[in-house]
Amino acid sequence: MSADVIPLRAAAPQPSLAPLLSLTAAGMNSVNAIILDRMQSEIPLIPTLAGHLIAGGGKRMRPMLTIAGAALCDYQGARHHKLAAAVEFIHTATLLHDDVVDGSELRRGKQTANVVYGNPATVLVGDFLFTRAFELMVEDGSLKVLKILSKASSVIAEGEVDQLTAQRKVETSEEHYLSIIGAKTAALFAAATRIAAVVAERSEADEAALDAYGRNLGIAFQLVDDAIDYDSDAAEMGKGKGDDFRDGKMTLPVILAYARGTTEERQFWQEAIAGFRCEDEDLAHAVALIAKYDTVAATRERARHYAQRAIDAIAVFPAGPARAAMAEAAEFAVARRY
Amino acid sequence: MSADVIPLRAAAPQPSLAPLLSLTAAGMNSVNAIILDRMQSEIPLIPTLAGHLIAGGGKRMRPMLTIAGAALCDYQGARHHKLAAAVEFIHTATLLHDDVVDGSELRRGKQTANVVYGNPATVLVGDFLFTRAFELMVEDGSLKVLKILSKASSVIAEGEVDQLTAQRKVETSEEHYLSIIGAKTAALFAAATRIAAVVAERSEADEAALDAYGRNLGIAFQLVDDAIDYDSDAAEMGKGKGDDFRDGKMTLPVILAYARGTTEERQFWQEAIAGFRCEDEDLAHAVALIAKYDTVAATRERARHYAQRAIDAIAVFPAGPARAAMAEAAEFAVARRY
Repeated sequence: MSADVIPLRAAAPQPSLAPLLSLTAAGMNSVNAIILDRMQSEIPLIPTLAGHLIAGGGKRMRPMLTIAGAALCDYQGARHHKLAAAVEFIHTATLLHDDVVDGSELRRGKQTANVVYGNPATVLVGDFLFTRAFELMVEDGSLKVLKILSKASSVIAEGEVDQLTAQRKVETSEEHYLSIIGAKTAALFAAATRIAAVVAERSEADEAALDAYGRNLGIAFQLVDDAIDYDSDAAEMGKGKGDDFRDGKMTLPVILAYARGTTEERQFWQEAIAGFRCEDEDLAHAVALIAKYDTVAATRERARHYAQRAIDAIAVFPAGPARAAMAEAAEFAVARRY
Repeated sequence: MSADVIPLRAAAPQPSLAPLLSLTAAGMNSVNAIILDRMQSEIPLIPTLAGHLIAGGGKRMRPMLTIAGAALCDYQGARHHKLAAAVEFIHTATLLHDDVVDGSELRRGKQTANVVYGNPATVLVGDFLFTRAFELMVEDGSLKVLKILSKASSVIAEGEVDQLTAQRKVETSEEHYLSIIGAKTAALFAAATRIAAVVAERSEADEAALDAYGRNLGIAFQLVDDAIDYDSDAAEMGKGKGDDFRDGKMTLPVILAYARGTTEERQFWQEAIAGFRCEDEDLAHAVALIAKYDTVAATRERARHYAQRAIDAIAVFPAGPARAAMAEAAEFAVARRY
């Protein structure tokens, strides 16, 4: 005669970032202190503009993954703090330049730096953060880490140019799209996790395992980012909704809707991606077509595949809180709504 | 009864870059081959856009100075070729971003990359070249060189932001201006020459001497660049004439004309630098005021001082063709009309 309601089935547990946040909390305190310290400059506009984006939140996934990877490798030192800050600076620099390139107006629910401070300052402060990243790496002094991160940086830049070249081209294939996000997003995730194995002086196989974890997780993250931009169910995002549509970016939800569509629907996509249909009603039509072919769900399914590969890549490491947190982060990457 | 005209005095010899070009010709062949090789990418827009600027000529002063510095140090190896290419990539990346920041339309007599390919691609290819520079340095493997060039890169970025902040501010002082050009221009000249001593494994004193040579030469070069933008006698430049004026940049010819001017003239400068007087007739008036106070000549005189310091800095090295070519390059920096 208890008043408790016993559910027939336990609700499926919602994967969360909480274990990763808790695993990396102490390390991230050090990383955040380094970020704050190293974005300073005698030129006041630099910390002001950099702070606008850096203080604006963001998950700091990449440095967290470096910290988590080091925990997975049972690394006891502190070298990875500076390197994780370098990774975040590289990421921040690319975000600043991305927003200039896309003419974005919103990021993480705030006006972008380019709107507040203008394109010129945003380009130059991006450059500054990028150079600071390299100074941090040079201070660490590992040529191996420098090689990994300078290669990743150059791959990112290539990926960004590739994405720009593919923009407004409705014929972009899923293969080409995967190659773009592998470069612009996954390369830095892979480098962020791989360097944890390097500082911990683990085997080449462990390095490769962490690289594979990061790379697959990065692809999953980007797929879901691109799904969310068309997800009519998703909560309001920080990013301006429909940005990808108006920019004529061929992301997977669109690539699949185009492939699965009728001749008439393809005509719509051709005009929209070319930039001739970018009104609110056009966006609404795009979202409706994407719902019709369920390509947001299909994109999440693709993401699930990569997340599973990420989880399996670190199965070679001993079970424990680090591996569990990293596995749940991969599940979170697929399930997240923001 | 000869028909020959015997001049009363020999004409003062015009300093030339020819000895430096000849000293560095073989080395620069290797450097140019590396530049061409390393600006390649599978993304076709990258070599196309980079090539637009790189093939567009330019003196390649900075890599030439690395090659000349190595000759001065009697260095017999080839490591400096890759590093000189890295220096030129850093320089090229900053030029691409500068042109976006300033909205420039002409450089070296050609349309700028941002006009031909747009700002987004120009920003991203600049990023790409910058990352390629770091990859080249990492391949060389000297942490000392990496430290010098990553520090120089971050100082350049700070100088660029400082210059942007000072733009349209008529109250900019000569001291502040010197600090800006010391960062945005001279830091890379100093690094380019210093690394020659590093690869040659010379003493700290020799490193410092080459650093001082490059730094002072860089200041002289920038001063004369800024003088030429207002020099009514100068031949047509590649750069769009009067760009600094229309951008509201407080360069030394203007700083001195403002300081030496009447109340009425200062009123003109205030309005012009603030951006309210930027027609052709305003530029003509500015050039007339600069002629009235002879501040192009005064700027060249300041440049002469730094060029002399550059020449004296390398007096510690043995006399010979390298030292002579580098000294004449400093004299050329002051005398040049383009």
